Amino acid sequence: MTLVKDVLQGNRLALARLLTQIENENEMGYQALNELFGHTGGAHLIGVTGPPGTGKSSLVNQLAHYYRNLLQGKPKRVGIVAVDPSSPFTGGAILGDRVRMRDLVGDRGVFIRSMASRGSLGGLAAATSGVVQALDAAGFEVIFIETVGAGQAEVEIAHLAHTTLVVEAPGMGDDIQAIKAGILEVADILVVNKADRPGVEATTRALRSMLQLAHPAPHIFARSEGLSFSKRKVGLIDQRESNPASGPDGEAPSLWIPPIQCTVATEGRGVSDLVQEIERHYQYLIETGEMQQREQERLRSELEVLLRERLVGRWRERVTEARYEQTFEKLARREISPWQAADHLIDWL
Amino acid sequence: MTLVKDVLQGNRLALARLLTQIENENEMGYQALNELFGHTGGAHLIGVTGPPGTGKSSLVNQLAHYYRNLLQGKPKRVGIVAVDPSSPFTGGAILGDRVRMRDLVGDRGVFIRSMASRGSLGGLAAATSGVVQALDAAGFEVIFIETVGAGQAEVEIAHLAHTTLVVEAPGMGDDIQAIKAGILEVADILVVNKADRPGVEATTRALRSMLQLAHPAPHIFARSEGLSFSKRKVGLIDQRESNPASGPDGEAPSLWIPPIQCTVATEGRGVSDLVQEIERHYQYLIETGEMQQREQERLRSELEVLLRERLVGRWRERVTEARYEQTFEKLARREISPWQAADHLIDWL
Repeated sequence: MTLVKDVLQGNRLALARLLTQIENENEMGYQALNELFGHTGGAHLIGVTGPPGTGKSSLVNQLAHYYRNLLQGKPKRVGIVAVDPSSPFTGGAILGDRVRMRDLVGDRGVFIRSMASRGSLGGLAAATSGVVQALDAAGFEVIFIETVGAGQAEVEIAHLAHTTLVVEAPGMGDDIQAIKAGILEVADILVVNKADRPGVEATTRALRSMLQLAHPAPHIFARSEGLSFSKRKVGLIDQRESNPASGPDGEAPSLWIPPIQCTVATEGRGVSDLVQEIERHYQYLIETGEMQQREQERLRSELEVLLRERLVGRWRERVTEARYEQTFEKLARREISPWQAADHLIDWL
Repeated sequence: MTLVKDVLQGNRLALARLLTQIENENEMGYQALNELFGHTGGAHLIGVTGPPGTGKSSLVNQLAHYYRNLLQGKPKRVGIVAVDPSSPFTGGAILGDRVRMRDLVGDRGVFIRSMASRGSLGGLAAATSGVVQALDAAGFEVIFIETVGAGQAEVEIAHLAHTTLVVEAPGMGDDIQAIKAGILEVADILVVNKADRPGVEATTRALRSMLQLAHPAPHIFARSEGLSFSKRKVGLIDQRESNPASGPDGEAPSLWIPPIQCTVATEGRGVSDLVQEIERHYQYLIETGEMQQREQERLRSELEVLLRERLVGRWRERVTEARYEQTFEKLARREISPWQAADHLIDWL
């Protein structure tokens, strides 16, 4: 297939065309992905999630800029997939693109794709996984998967990554519900962005205590506190909490405790340290062999998402509209329950 | 079935037992729901959603208190279904119960159920719809469906209602992404809670301009502005924007423009006005015949949710673990793509 060859050779136009096919759930797009899949697995996938208003887009922007221009050694090729599950009506995704353009425009080592929902969340998750695979096969070495919103589904999409960043901001930590331990559980790195705002200490403190709750190994965590946790008192921005399990002497880390990193993305402050944490997590995954395990989990989640989508798609192809409406009429008259209606429509095939 | 009879007669213990069966996806629970479904349709279902930290639980608490103790005429029986899609680990749902208890404990006209996720979001949505049906059949006249979080899935669950409240708070409106028009699109009533905090005017202004963007009939909206929109200047808390389409002379409303209601739930301020707006929306739905249409949409959404769950459930019953693992191994070795793996597993049946 010419398209596949072109994508593998780094043709941006071919890549853009493929991504559109994937987004439109075009069968040709899936065919191409089947051929490309053998070329994936080279990229470091980084998920970025967190509540609205925490500045995730600016942060991803700055991270991409760092990987392109400030990294020691060879710059890395960066893909950004911005997933907005809210209605396409908002234009949020397009706006996000424009804000990014100023910094990254013209850099052929960066590829940005904004994805808005057009149907079910499951469809969006499936399409996102396809877009990430295409970028991976096309040779992008670092791929950010950024989700707008902080619902369970958004978190699940961001967690289709090797390293997951959860972004918070000061002033959101006061409330019980503002930071859900459920979100913290998926975090490999916690970022407190907008750290020049008042309340940054309270937010960091709240995050730390919720981390202790959320962490599956509390005894190890408690031990770690005695080592370096909550003992460090440094400047506002460099208030980074390093992983106590990985000593400075370079010994192999045995357990990853999510560090808390403060940033002011709009000014680029803290971004360098954040990149260090991201790279440290990548090393941790590889050195401990956890990368292999995480890759397996990732693929299992992807398979689950696609199975659901394909099952529903297949069923929809085969059910007739007349049959559906006939069953629905009975439901609307409350002659049968929704459960009976569902079973009825499935059994019929 | 004794359980069904007991639930219909208002036996709380039987109801609690049924809800547990539904949550556990017990087949007996579905059997009971099939029998109960003919008794549903009497309740006014009110969805409550919005970003974390806006005080949704306190607000629902106060609304329930109002419907029980301050309503003119006969108090209404109130059901509350609090849906928390984040991990059961957090204990958030339990905490929410405790906070509520103080006000509503001992009132047999109130039934509260907190639901935490134990599997897929689809499963949670299906279980929520079952729990709401059971409360409806048991004679609860007003049922609040409150979702924690502001993701697309949470909004969809809250929208399985007749009247949907979207709750915001001051200080969250500064950011482009803080209020998504996608969420506003489902709002029948907008609530600015914590209205004693600074920034309430800015938030209200931001909501109003986003409403104009989100509203599907901008020309009607523009016309309405000339009538009474943005002209009213009243006290902070009573800064209610009435629906210009329903005149004070009592003529039938032709179009619903979501009003913006300020509240301070912790002090009960604005709650009386909010109840009035809720009741006005209910009247609007009935008088315009939109209730019937909305009920159909609601049932269609419910059927979609259940179809997805049942399809996946049926498939899972029939696929063997050996087959699944064999296919997954090929995927993990990147011999086949996730799409090919999914098709393989479905075609095999």
